[in-house]
Parts: sequence; structure tokens; C-alpha cells
Amino acid sequence: MTETAKEADRSPAPGLEDIYTEDGSVRQDFLALVGAAIADRDVLFLRQKVAKLHESELGDLLEALLPEQRLALVHLLGDDFDLTALTEVDEAIRLEIVDQLSNAQIAAAIGDLDSDDAVYILEDLDHEDREDILAQLPFTERVRLRRALDYPESSAGRRMQSEFVAVPPFWTVGQTIDYMREDDGLPERFTQIFVIDPTFKLLGSVDLDRILRAKRQVRIEDIMHETTHSIAADMDQEEAAQIFEQYDLLSAAVVDENDRLVGVLTIDDVVDVITEEADEDIRRLAGVGDEELSDSAVSTARSRVPWLLVNLVTAFCSASIIGLFDASIEKMIALAVLMPIVASMGGNAGTQTMTVTVRALATKDLDIYNAARIVRREAGVGLMNGVVFAILLGIVAAFWFGNPQLGGVIGAAMIINMMAAALGGILVPLLLDKLKADPAIASSVFVTMITDCVGFFAFLGLATWWFSIH
Amino acid sequence: MTETAKEADRSPAPGLEDIYTEDGSVRQDFLALVGAAIADRDVLFLRQKVAKLHESELGDLLEALLPEQRLALVHLLGDDFDLTALTEVDEAIRLEIVDQLSNAQIAAAIGDLDSDDAVYILEDLDHEDREDILAQLPFTERVRLRRALDYPESSAGRRMQSEFVAVPPFWTVGQTIDYMREDDGLPERFTQIFVIDPTFKLLGSVDLDRILRAKRQVRIEDIMHETTHSIAADMDQEEAAQIFEQYDLLSAAVVDENDRLVGVLTIDDVVDVITEEADEDIRRLAGVGDEELSDSAVSTARSRVPWLLVNLVTAFCSASIIGLFDASIEKMIALAVLMPIVASMGGNAGTQTMTVTVRALATKDLDIYNAARIVRREAGVGLMNGVVFAILLGIVAAFWFGNPQLGGVIGAAMIINMMAAALGGILVPLLLDKLKADPAIASSVFVTMITDCVGFFAFLGLATWWFSIH
Repeated sequence: MTETAKEADRSPAPGLEDIYTEDGSVRQDFLALVGAAIADRDVLFLRQKVAKLHESELGDLLEALLPEQRLALVHLLGDDFDLTALTEVDEAIRLEIVDQLSNAQIAAAIGDLDSDDAVYILEDLDHEDREDILAQLPFTERVRLRRALDYPESSAGRRMQSEFVAVPPFWTVGQTIDYMREDDGLPERFTQIFVIDPTFKLLGSVDLDRILRAKRQVRIEDIMHETTHSIAADMDQEEAAQIFEQYDLLSAAVVDENDRLVGVLTIDDVVDVITEEADEDIRRLAGVGDEELSDSAVSTARSRVPWLLVNLVTAFCSASIIGLFDASIEKMIALAVLMPIVASMGGNAGTQTMTVTVRALATKDLDIYNAARIVRREAGVGLMNGVVFAILLGIVAAFWFGNPQLGGVIGAAMIINMMAAALGGILVPLLLDKLKADPAIASSVFVTMITDCVGFFAFLGLATWWFSIH
Repeated sequence: MTETAKEADRSPAPGLEDIYTEDGSVRQDFLALVGAAIADRDVLFLRQKVAKLHESELGDLLEALLPEQRLALVHLLGDDFDLTALTEVDEAIRLEIVDQLSNAQIAAAIGDLDSDDAVYILEDLDHEDREDILAQLPFTERVRLRRALDYPESSAGRRMQSEFVAVPPFWTVGQTIDYMREDDGLPERFTQIFVIDPTFKLLGSVDLDRILRAKRQVRIEDIMHETTHSIAADMDQEEAAQIFEQYDLLSAAVVDENDRLVGVLTIDDVVDVITEEADEDIRRLAGVGDEELSDSAVSTARSRVPWLLVNLVTAFCSASIIGLFDASIEKMIALAVLMPIVASMGGNAGTQTMTVTVRALATKDLDIYNAARIVRREAGVGLMNGVVFAILLGIVAAFWFGNPQLGGVIGAAMIINMMAAALGGILVPLLLDKLKADPAIASSVFVTMITDCVGFFAFLGLATWWFSIH
């Protein structure tokens, strides 16, 4: 990429300082302009105003356009279409656009991308297309991309950039600066350089500010620091992200099993990983899988069925508990009216505790040193809030049905269920974590099963017992 | 900070390459060693093995220790205790430790910190202590910190670092490098330098790699790029984080209302913001406030009451709907047994849709361009899954109670409630967002209220009507 092209990348489209409205969606008038230009096949306008957008702006624009506009735009821009924008859109839209391009076009465009962006696009293609595209790339690039693609999905090796700056330890700062001034093959952006031996074994790294602050004659090995936070290429990206977060890294060396430098992982990719993983936790807690907004209704409906099915089974469990007490309900209809309250309050309290626990496990804030204390705390919270809401609910129920004894029974059931909710909310995720299962996925089924069953059983059971002896 | 001290910061404690076990908690044997050293008042060991830990490792160690060990450790380390570690621990632990230190000690220690870390610690103190500490600091530092503290909480101004490298546009690359080699007052770590006019008005910025690749005689203004993504100091940190994410920034200039450079926001702080905000969304969906693991049981219980109270009110609403049909339930107890199933399935389906919607709104993936499509999609999902589970539940209910008509009634109620869940799950957060309320906080109350009420009303109402005419 030339200097001028790089400059242009960094400035907004001329005349349109900001393509976004205040709340972050693409501006309607900009969208209308682009739509008209597409309809008029006004390639000049599109090259000037659209091709020069930042990749993420172009991505947002693609998502805002209608499907047929999207494809027409890519077609009209031709070689001026920046494929990097595809790393910024929904998977469904990415595949839709990639399907429209010939393998030769993709191969030509992929040559200009950073290797991590290229891998991002290639990994979604089917095997045949991917091999066809790789075959059309120059040798070194092919080898590089194939190596990254060989690492497991969601590993650091997949997300790394294979371009990096590496120098031998005996070079001076002056030699290093001269090398950087003259070499054209450097990555577009970097914040540290790596120090390697002739076999590419990683010796250390130097941040750019260290180099700028050192005198020209200083040797690199004297200012480098040994890389204590290098990342194994097959490490899971989430684990790598945690190392970045813990040590406030901007970039880190990625090494293979022989400790040889194979790439560099940068913070911008890690930020994406952090956002994705947090999203995943939220979605898993609600039983939603890896769906995207652009998925169709049918595939979305299908992906949500398993979770609903599991919940149907647990709902039958609690229904059969109610079935045990049908005689009592027949005698006192108020039980049927009140029983969902006990279950629902327990469900909410359990979800609160569970959410805190699942997140604390995910961020590693909860461990063996504080687990016992947190379990005690949650039990205390359950007891306290149980008593508070037992009194509230008891009084209301007593007045509603003019039956103080019923108030006492529902209050007692409330305390029991709030305790069950607290203990279930913390012990279920802890246990799942101990069993190496993902607490985010399975916890809420078990927790609501506990609070529903305990809620109905405690209330109906207590009522049956109490009113049978009084 | 001297060069040697900086080197030590970057290497692990000698002899203990990694203080963590594989699943990320502090190693038991290391903890035992530290505990013994604290008991023996072995200051030498603590200085060698503990004081040199990375700030985040020291933070994790503090969290793993018992409260009395924690305070003894801080006391024993004295001036060797790195106050930065306090930015890595729970708020309750931070306050507990800060309370133990005299204002003079804090003032002395804060002088060594980056301004963003200093602000992080100062902002939690009460007004009087904060003023007392500020009064003991040198003039420029006091002014700097006070300025940052004057910006609203959670603003970019609070999170920025006031130390930065700035040069005039007419300097050459050579002059700039020489300045960086000779000046001792530079920030500890930086990735770009800023270009300003004599009044500190921001003109642009240059990444360090650009400087390293340019020849010495090149003028800064020729390689700088105009800063298009500068951040207003009073911008909310979440908004600033979104700009970082969108444009893959490593650092960005923070400017005051006159566009004058006042500080720099760096990606490591932004990563913390991103994690916090995602956490906040998860917690809000479950009705858990800003609690921390180190909070006491009483304060945790109290903070969870409002949410449970709101849920109690909605539970009464659905209970009174059941109350409307007590005569029907008395005639057919099966209704009481089956009714929670319809409500619970609707609740789960509604939560799925709502979670997807809330996250899509938070990440700005959902906007006016695709809202109509997503509403249609969710309605389709609700209808499809409604039919699937209507058939399943209908068959089971019909066999369970030997009553095919009851199966038909519950199936019809299921379809109605799944549609209500889908529409509620998407329209409630969209509406709240439109009204400028946070969809994460309030959505789930409304959605479960809808699914409970519609579920009970549809099932009991249909049953009453159907069995009254047959």
C-alpha cells in the first residue's frame, strides 16, 4: 500500500465528516446518496465517497444497505472494494458477498490484506474454494496463511498476524532504525519489535518507545526485555485475551511448540475477542446460541429449540409436583393463585446469584480462596431477603384471602425457596465449573428447576401439612 | 522511575516464574510462602518476591490473602508497596487498604503513579482526604489531577493519562527523536506523539512506527495525520470505547471544549471499560446492581431488594389473573397443574429474544435499517416454535389427563404465548431504547410480566370458554 493510499485510509470521506448520526447508526442522507449512486451506476462518486471510508464504516454501510444494493456496490467498486470491510460485517452478509466474487477476485484482493484479516475471511469458506484461492497466491503468502489456518479455530494462531519486525540481538539501535527506514516489507502498523536468534527462536522484545529513547550505538540486547508473556499458537483466544488484560499488553509474540516466533497477536484483535466472549456469556445464560442478526427466521427458530425443549422437560417436572397436591388445591383454590409467586420470586433471586457467580467465574474473580466466603454470603443474602419478602408476601396473602394461616404458610415457603435459590445460584455454577462444563450454558436450567420445584413443593407441601392438622 | 526499576517490573519474581495455577488462581504454595513471610515479618523476602510482582499479580495476591495478612503486607512493604496494585483489586479491598495508610503516605506514593492510576485511587476517597492528599503534591501534579477529577465520573477525562509527548509541527523527525532521547519527563509508555500549536491546540498525531520509518530530515507535519478521532474530555467512557473499537485505536488524544490537548486515553484503560460495560449489561439483565464480590451480605441483600420488589408486584399481577378463573380451576384441577408450563415456556422464549435484542442494541448492530426485518423475523420464530411446542405439549397434556380437548386448548395457548414472548422480547427493549431508558435494566421485568400474564390468561381464558360451550 502506498503512502498516499494509507493517508486516505485514515481521513474521512471528503465532504462527509461523519457518516453516523448521534446515536451511532449510519446517516439516512448518506445512505440515500449512496443508494442513488448505486442505482445510477455512478462509479466515480462511489470511488470517491465510499471506497475511501474506513473499513468499519464501510462495513456498517454494507449492513445498512439492502441486499441487492450491497452486491451491486461491491460489483461497481471492483478492485477498489476493500475486502477488510468484510471482517466488520455479520457472517451471513460476509458469505453472501464472498459468494458473489470469483475465487480469482478474492485471491487478488486477499494479497493486499494483513494476514489476520485474510485468515478471517478464508476460514469461513468451504474447503474447495479456500484451496483454490490459496493456490493462486504467491508461495510465501500461501505458506503463511496455510500455517495460520492449520491452527485450531479460536486459537491465537488463527487470530495472529504473520507479518512482524524481528532483528538479531547484536544489532544496534541505529542499525535497527536504518533497517526500518529502508525495508518496504514491514507490517502496516506495529508497536514492538522482536529479537530472535538465527533459528527464529524468540529471545525478547523491545517496545518502540524504548528504541526511540535509546542512543543509536546501544545494542538491542541491552534494551530488550525477555518476553515473559509469549503466547503459544494453539492457546485458546480467550486465554490469550486474559493475558493481554492482566499485563496491559499492546501486542505479544506468538510462538510455535518449539518456541519459534510465528506471528504477533495485537490488542485490536484481542478487543474483538473480549467483546465476543462477553457476548457469548450473555447469550449462553439466556440459552441463545451463536446466532447472528442476519440469520433467517427458520435457522434462528431451529437453533433456539434445544434450550426450549430442556425447559419444557423441567416445566413438566414442576407440573408433576403440583399434580401431587391436586387434592389440596381442590380444597383451597387460593393455593393455585398464590403458588406461582413463590416460584417466580425464587427464580429471580436464583438468577441474580447465578449471574454474579457465572461472571465472577468467567473473569476469574471467584476462586478457591473466596468461594467459601461467597457461598456463606449468598446464603446470608438468601436468608435476609427471604425473611423480608416472606413478611411482605405473608401480609398481602393473609389480607387478600382473609386467612392469616395462609399468610404464615406462604411466608415460610418463601424463606425456604429464597435459601434454595441462593444456594442453587452459587453451587450449581461452581459445580459445573469444577466438572469442566461451561457454567454459562447449563446453570440457568438447573437453577430455575430447583427454584420451581422447591417453590411449589414447599408451598403446597407446607399448606397440605398445616391445614391437615388444623 | 529508573531504568533498573522498570526492568524489574517487567520480569517475574525470581524463582517463581508463574504465581498462578493452570486455572488462573494464585498458587497455594506461593500463598503459603507469603503468609509465612508475613507472620515472620520477613521484609527481605517480601521485598524480593512480592514487591517485584507485576501490579496485577500483586492485586490478585492481595485478594487471595486474608484481610489481616493484606494489611500486614502493605505495612511491611512500606514504600516498596506499589500503589498501582490497588487499581487491580475490588473496591472494598481498595478502601480497606487506603484507610490504613496515612494521607502523607498516599501522597508520597501517588507521586510515582501515572495520572490515570492516581485518579482511579483518589476518586473513591472522601472529599476531605482527597483535598488533604492533593495539597501535599507538587503544583503541576496537583493541577493535573484536579483537572482530571473535575471531569464527570465515567468520562474520558477521568480515565485519561495527563502525561503525553507533544511536539510542534515544524520539528523534524531527527529533532523529535533527539528530544525523546534526552527528556526524562516522558510518560513510561506511549505509542504515538501529538502535534500541537503553541496554545496546545491539537493539530495531529504520529504513530511511533511512522517516525521510525521516516528519514531524520522529514518534518513532522509531513508525516502526521490529522486526528479525526480525538475524544472530548467529557465524553462518556463507553462512547470513547466504541470509537476505539471501531477504528482499532491504540491511543487517542483527549481534548477540552476548546480543542486543546489535555491528555491521552490508552487502549489498556479502554479494555477495562469494555469489560466493565459488558459485565454491567449482564448484571442489569438479571437485576443485579453494581455489587462486588467483596461486598458484605447485608449490602448485597439490600442492593438486590428493589428488583425483587418489582418482580413481586408483577407476580401479584399474574396471580390476580389466575384469581379471575378460580371457578374454572375448581372444576378442572388439571388447569392448575398445567398453567405454569405455558407461562414458563413463554418466559424462556421471551428472554431469548430479549437478550439478543438488548445486546444488539448495546453493540449498535440493531438500528432503524434492520429493526423492521428483525421484528418480522422474531415474530416468525415465535410462530414456528409456538407451533412446534404446541404440538408437543398438546400431545403430552392430552395423554396425561386423558383429555384431547385439554391438549388442544393448551396448544392454542402455547402458540399465543410464544408469539407474545417474541413480540414482547423485541418490542420492549426497542421501545425502552427509543425512550432513552437502558433496555438492559428494565426489559426483563416487562417481558416476563407479559409472558406470565398472557400465558395464564390465554390458557385459563381459552379453557373457560371452550369447556363452557362443550
